[in-house]
Amino acid sequence: MIMLSPSSSSFTHPVTVYYEDTDAAGVVYYANYLRFCERARTEALRTLGFEQQRLMQEKAIGFVVRHVEADYLAPARLDDQLMVYTSVIKLGGASLTFLQEIVRSDDRLFSSRIIIACLDMARQRPTAIPQQLRSSFSQYLQK
Amino acid sequence: MIMLSPSSSSFTHPVTVYYEDTDAAGVVYYANYLRFCERARTEALRTLGFEQQRLMQEKAIGFVVRHVEADYLAPARLDDQLMVYTSVIKLGGASLTFLQEIVRSDDRLFSSRIIIACLDMARQRPTAIPQQLRSSFSQYLQK
Amino acid sequence: MIMLSPSSSSFTHPVTVYYEDTDAAGVVYYANYLRFCERARTEALRTLGFEQQRLMQEKAIGFVVRHVEADYLAPARLDDQLMVYTSVIKLGGASLTFLQEIVRSDDRLFSSRIIIACLDMARQRPTAIPQQLRSSFSQYLQK
Amino acid sequence: MIMLSPSSSSFTHPVTVYYEDTDAAGVVYYANYLRFCERARTEALRTLGFEQQRLMQEKAIGFVVRHVEADYLAPARLDDQLMVYTSVIKLGGASLTFLQEIVRSDDRLFSSRIIIACLDMARQRPTAIPQQLRSSFSQYLQK
Repeated sequence: MIMLSPSSSSFTHPVTVYYEDTDAAGVVYYANYLRFCERARTEALRTLGFEQQRLMQEKAIGFVVRHVEADYLAPARLDDQLMVYTSVIKLGGASLTFLQEIVRSDDRLFSSRIIIACLDMARQRPTAIPQQLRSSFSQYLQK
Repeated sequence: MIMLSPSSSSFTHPVTVYYEDTDAAGVVYYANYLRFCERARTEALRTLGFEQQRLMQEKAIGFVVRHVEADYLAPARLDDQLMVYTSVIKLGGASLTFLQEIVRSDDRLFSSRIIIACLDMARQRPTAIPQQLRSSFSQYLQK
Repeated sequence: MIMLSPSSSSFTHPVTVYYEDTDAAGVVYYANYLRFCERARTEALRTLGFEQQRLMQEKAIGFVVRHVEADYLAPARLDDQLMVYTSVIKLGGASLTFLQEIVRSDDRLFSSRIIIACLDMARQRPTAIPQQLRSSFSQYLQK
Repeated sequence: MIMLSPSSSSFTHPVTVYYEDTDAAGVVYYANYLRFCERARTEALRTLGFEQQRLMQEKAIGFVVRHVEADYLAPARLDDQLMVYTSVIKLGGASLTFLQEIVRSDDRLFSSRIIIACLDMARQRPTAIPQQLRSSFSQYLQK
């Protein structure tokens, strides 16, 4: 997997690790890193002025995850203060490819490439990403 | 809280504890016992011939939790094989009160009293429990 | 259940509702309000200068939930910005009783009374709450 | 991603979709498919006569996820009865590569390739998979 440093084009979202996120091995449960990534994508969208609830209600548009590729580099633990760095590495017509990395101080713990498709929710078919959203997202585009 | 022994009128549902259910303290995370209880209520309903998805689609009826009272008696751990005992202790016109207990072998780990309301989902208002469902549920009624 | 207004002695913790918190009924899944409450208790503790991880490692002291009593008043939904108000309503020798309420703007959605016991983790027995922590917690004591 | 049909060498584990697994989009939340996969891997291990709790306690050996590659092909919904097919596609000295697919009747909903490393938990270093476990796992090896 291509590993990029968090860059100026990254959206940054802080996450605190609570008991609910950990498991009996004393570390964050592996599926929960995907939760952290989804929170970060949602906040990136919100920062750009979009809410998923509204996009669904007003434009019948939704985003669904199509593909996830993730490397678990080191475990996060209870009480950790993490940062999720989110950037867009491909801005397609009906899909977005995100690079999302989770770090604790200088340690990279998790790195993922996540492909999201834009769906016409009524027909459950891929549809073009609305132009306004598309151009907004371009500010997170990794050069 | 009234504590009753699992009786012949109880619905029994087995639950295995996986990593996802535990936390860094090495035990099942406290909110997750409520998940186990909900699975058991859903399976009790299914055994009676009802599916929540269908009730919602065909009759616009849904069940929502109104009140939870729970005692945490002893912790469940990874790989535990648990049993959830579910009985109805009050069968109201528009609500049901469940007694749900979680045991491991002879140890009672968790005991709860959960009040569920029947809702007309369109108006988000309490509505009468359908008669067929009501009479079905009476077989789990604790005497 | 006793319902108190958030008072000056409450600890306030904001929570954003993400997809992970919701269910197919379009609302926050009932067990997840307990997650929000636990995050708020953890942050209250952290604000007082304590971390659970450290209390466990250095003093072999842990906190476990003994009893939960919760009223579900109105549902929270995707993208909601919630506030969790946490106060202590009883400060016992080896246990704490919290009142935790979750509100959205002026709407109270969830109200709970949660009893936490202080445990000697090695012996898994109740133990006295350390004096320093006890006096710190008294600032959240509801009069 | 290579897609293989469930074969005779697959371990089969049934999963029922409950409210806890779904989100406000009406489908199973994307991170939760990884929970289903982990349950299946745990049950495969248990069927072979191993419990993770014991492996950790007796041999100080644990398994951690290193890499996940997942395709989301179609959504699972509330009340769905799913099957998780698990096979081993690579049996390394200190790691295992699983192919895990989730199907509903004849529909493939989710396909993943998951690399697990065997760890010496005390030193947090990769260690050889115990020979007994290794030869047991070979029965799920996809030819």
